[in-house]
This record gives sequence, structure tokens and C-alpha cells, in this order.
Amino acid sequence: MRIVMVGFGVVGRALAERFIADQNYLASNFGLKPRVVAVADTSGALVNERGVDLKKALDAKRRLGSLAKGMPDEVKPLSSSELLDELDYDVLVETTPTNIVDGEPGLTHVKKALSMGKSVVTTNKGPLAIALPALLELAERNGALLRFSGTVGGGTPILDFGRMCLSGDRVVKVEGILNGTTNYILTRMYKGGLSFEEALKEAQDAGYAERDPTMDVEGYDTACKLVIIANYVMGLKVTLRDVRIKGIRDVTYDVLKRLGESGKTIKLLGVIDGEGLVVEPREVSLTDPLCVWGTLNAVTFHTEHLGSETIVGKGAGGIETAIAVIRDLIAVKRFLMRGLGG
Amino acid sequence: MRIVMVGFGVVGRALAERFIADQNYLASNFGLKPRVVAVADTSGALVNERGVDLKKALDAKRRLGSLAKGMPDEVKPLSSSELLDELDYDVLVETTPTNIVDGEPGLTHVKKALSMGKSVVTTNKGPLAIALPALLELAERNGALLRFSGTVGGGTPILDFGRMCLSGDRVVKVEGILNGTTNYILTRMYKGGLSFEEALKEAQDAGYAERDPTMDVEGYDTACKLVIIANYVMGLKVTLRDVRIKGIRDVTYDVLKRLGESGKTIKLLGVIDGEGLVVEPREVSLTDPLCVWGTLNAVTFHTEHLGSETIVGKGAGGIETAIAVIRDLIAVKRFLMRGLGG
Repeated sequence: MRIVMVGFGVVGRALAERFIADQNYLASNFGLKPRVVAVADTSGALVNERGVDLKKALDAKRRLGSLAKGMPDEVKPLSSSELLDELDYDVLVETTPTNIVDGEPGLTHVKKALSMGKSVVTTNKGPLAIALPALLELAERNGALLRFSGTVGGGTPILDFGRMCLSGDRVVKVEGILNGTTNYILTRMYKGGLSFEEALKEAQDAGYAERDPTMDVEGYDTACKLVIIANYVMGLKVTLRDVRIKGIRDVTYDVLKRLGESGKTIKLLGVIDGEGLVVEPREVSLTDPLCVWGTLNAVTFHTEHLGSETIVGKGAGGIETAIAVIRDLIAVKRFLMRGLGG
Repeated sequence: MRIVMVGFGVVGRALAERFIADQNYLASNFGLKPRVVAVADTSGALVNERGVDLKKALDAKRRLGSLAKGMPDEVKPLSSSELLDELDYDVLVETTPTNIVDGEPGLTHVKKALSMGKSVVTTNKGPLAIALPALLELAERNGALLRFSGTVGGGTPILDFGRMCLSGDRVVKVEGILNGTTNYILTRMYKGGLSFEEALKEAQDAGYAERDPTMDVEGYDTACKLVIIANYVMGLKVTLRDVRIKGIRDVTYDVLKRLGESGKTIKLLGVIDGEGLVVEPREVSLTDPLCVWGTLNAVTFHTEHLGSETIVGKGAGGIETAIAVIRDLIAVKRFLMRGLGG
């Protein structure tokens, strides 16, 4: 399987490390034999049709921060778009950072690959939150597969689990804690008696929250994930503009303390039901399986016949998200084999 | 899809009801068009190659308790084994009661169908607990698919979720609350201060426990499910004889109360790890996602890279298990289509 990797940050590098360390395991257990024909970061691209030397690329990036600085003689000054025009490959693995304003540069990469009939695995929520209905159509029209397990729940297979719940039944409502940072903050407020500002500071110091925490605490990250679930699991054709969003800045310790006395707490929930898509702080019973703590994520799928099914796991992490990419690559492999009558 | 239904108890009847009520939904969303060419209970079999009238069969069974009594002119005095020899069909749906002594009569039914290259969907734990490695081999040798989602977790897709966690990763340990009856009893002891005997009586009165509660409280039901997970998710070739089993009769309220003060409780866990397969009451932290209450089931898959992934849902119920059968029938349909190049 010829892979172009665009993006060589935390997830891209964790993926390269797994390709090296799990080579035999992936080949013998899943028939997955990744050959990375190009790796690109913003500085340029390493290209080799017989397979890029991932160890050298990892080492270069680690030592000097960019491929071009670490391997100046070998890196071509190609933009990722040029790369996707020129190279022959089977799958694009897109792991550039999420941008919810216009989805770029990921949106251009994903569109270009799908338009040319290439399958895409992405961990980038931006293009999906902005244009998932159009991208899924584009993929179908061009006989390509678009997979994005790692965008929701890190390595926890929330999206495919939701689809599975649907098989033979109907998902009628989804409720989820989809952002580990805000769950950590609310956990520290509830259990540690901290104010919002104190808990945010602690989350930043621990590396759970960004310097600019807007995406997390204002609910945008949760909203992106909710859009992806709505499209993939429930077949709704919605984008970020369809979500009513409220963050957790107004939650106070006093309210949490009072609720706790009656067996409840507040979580930042993403909810999809007959009313539409909403992200906001809502009351949750302390004994609800959805009520998980720390940086954990949890999603409950309410179905017509099965009742409520909850899945809980880590919601982020480089290795975890890389495993989600590998799961998607296994799905792409099966998809491509089917075209060949395999 | 021509289906033979052997067993017409709670699950079989719930399935027949779904076939009637969801006919259009199943056809248009999953391409599933079930034609039940025979329904058998212990009294005999209704056979019709163009499709049994399920409404009449349900009505007969409801009014008089058996197909032969309700429809004496139409029911043939065929044993289920004779039925499977004589009829032309695609899938056997086996829902006879679990028997862990010798797996019969289900084991004979399942073996017969698989030997003839027919796919099988079963909700019967008995044949699987006793002979799953051999049955999976038999299915593969004869080009048939053996599916059994409903045997673990009722409608909650625990087995397929476990397989999905494995895709690209490795499941290294499984821990589960796999029996709703014992979880109900332990919940009522912990939260209601009841003794084991009082809680058992309450569970029996509420219909959660059988008159003879041995299967549940002595841990055999959990052990059957653990064997099925070990084979299906972890590829171990084990049977019920490989499980060390201890039930919950010795758990006391005093112990639960003391543990509760240090943030723990006791649950009847099924565990698969490097030590083998064990069913026994074990301490669980009250904040562990696995620590669910009432009749809920929960399973945690510990994987090499993803950490711990937990799935929570109802563990039993007629409709729920019928939905698991439908999910399996959709999988069988895809399997059969693949053989036809579809």
C-alpha cells in the first residue's frame, strides 16, 4: 500500500514509529504492508517510490524540528499540493493541524486526493467539520474511501461503534463527553474544589490544555466531533454552522458543589437529537455510565430497541490516534481489495 | 435470505416480531429480506418454502404455548434435526436454551448446519462454551459463517467491539461484568444494605433471577461468555473447562460496606489475562468505568497502545438479543454476497 503522509507532527511521527516497530505484526495479522512513498511537513517533502527511510526522517525531525533542516540534501521544496499532483500513491494520510475557520490546508489536500480517486485517512477535524457532507459525496463519486476514526475519541473506536449500534437498529440520540481537556477541568473543579481559572491553569501546566484554550473550553472541539458523529453515524448532512455552542467558562464550583449533594454534576456534553446539534454544559447523574472523570471521553448512543450503549476511553494522544489511523488503513486495504474482487 | 428458526422462545418470538414490524426498514437500510422457511419448537415445525406466516405462528404460540397445539393441522411432527436434513435454506437461527452439560440440543443443530455449509446465527451459549474452537474450524472448513453476537451482552455489541479494538492493536487483558443478575444482587447488597439471600430473593421476584439461580450466582453464565470472548476476540482456543470459577455466595454486606468506605466495591468479574481465564468476585474502584450498577453489563478491553476501552449496556432482554441476531444476519448476508462476487 503506497502511502503519502502529509503532516509530520505528533500523530504523523507516532504513526511512522508504529510502521517501524509493528511492521511484522501488521503484515502477518492484517495483511497491512505500508510503503510510505512521501512524507511532507511545512518545510518540504521526502519522496522515495521504494519507501522513505522513516527512521532517518524521524531522527531529522526530532533533532532539527523540520524535515528540510534535518535532511537538506534530500528534501524537495514541494508543497503538499504539488506532491499530491505528481506522485503515484494509494492513500493519503492527512494529519495537519485542525483549522475550523476555513479547514486549510487540510481541506485542499483531502479534496485533491479524493477528486483523483485516492482514498484518504485523516485525523484533521477542520475539513470534516466544515465540509463533511460534500467530502463524503466526493469520495463516493470517485470510488474512494474517506476514513477519519482518529478525529473522534483518539484511538477509541467511537465512530465505528456508533455505526455498529445502528446495524439492524436505529440510533435516536447521541450524548457525549468528547473533549478531554474540559472534562479534566470540570473534574478538578468538582473533586478538587478549584475555580475554573485555577483548573484551567492546572490543565495548561499538565499539558492537557493549549496556551490558547478557546477550541476546548468554548466547546468548538466538541462541536467538530459532534458534526462528524452526526454525519457518520446518523447520516445527517450537517456542518459546524448547524451546531448551537456554549462553553464551560460560566460553570462555578458553587454550582458543582450544590449539584453534587443531589447526586449530579455538570459535564460539557455534545448532544444530537430531534432538536438538532447542541454543545453545552449539562447536568449528568453521578451514576450514569457517561459520567467519567479526568481526561476520559464517553459517548452514549441511545437506540430504539437496544436502550443506551456507552463507550469509554482515552480521547486523545499521539500513539492512540496513530492506532486509529492504522485501523483506518486496514479498512482502506479491504476496500481496495474489494475493487479487485478480493 | 431463507432462514430456519429453531427455538421459538423469548428471543425467537422477539425476532419474528421484528421481522414483521421492521420489514421495510431492514430491506431498505440493510438489504435484509428475511424469508423464514421454517420455525420449530419442541412440539414440531411449521414449514413453508414461500415463507411461514409469522403472525399466525406468534399468535398460536402465545395462545396455546406450543406450535403444535396452536396450529395442529399445519405443524409437522419433525424434529429439528430432521428439518435441517430435509430443507433448503441459507441460515440457521438457533435460539434453543443454554445447556452447559453437553450443549444439547443446540450443539447438534449447529454442527449439522455448519457441516452442510450453512451459516449459523445462535444466541445459545451452551454449544459455544463447550466446543467453540471446533465449531469455528467446522465453519471455516465448510465455507460457512458462524455468528453469535447475542450470546455476550444481549444486544450490546461487545464481541465485535473487542475485535475492532484489536484491529491494528493487541488486546492484552479483558475484564467484564458479564451477568446482569449478579450485578443486580451485588448492587442491592451494596446500595440497599441487603444480605445475599435477601437480594437474591428480590432479584427472583423482579424476574431478574431464575428459580434455580445456579447458572448466574455460581458464575457459570459469566464463564460461558468469557470463553466466547477469549475465542472470538483474543483467538484463544479454550472451552468452559479452562475457566477457574467462583460465584458470589460468600460476598457479605459487611465486606461491601467496609470496602465502600475506601472507594471500592466487589463485582463478579470475568478476567482473561496472561494467567488464564478466571471468574470470581473482585474489588473494583467506584470511579472505574467498569463499575456499573443494576443489571448493566460492562467490559473493559485493555490494549497495548490504546489503554483501556470500556463498553457499557444492557446485558440481556428478548428484543435486545433479537437485534443482535439481526445484526448477525446482516453480517451473514454480506458474507454470502462476497461469495457471489458482490
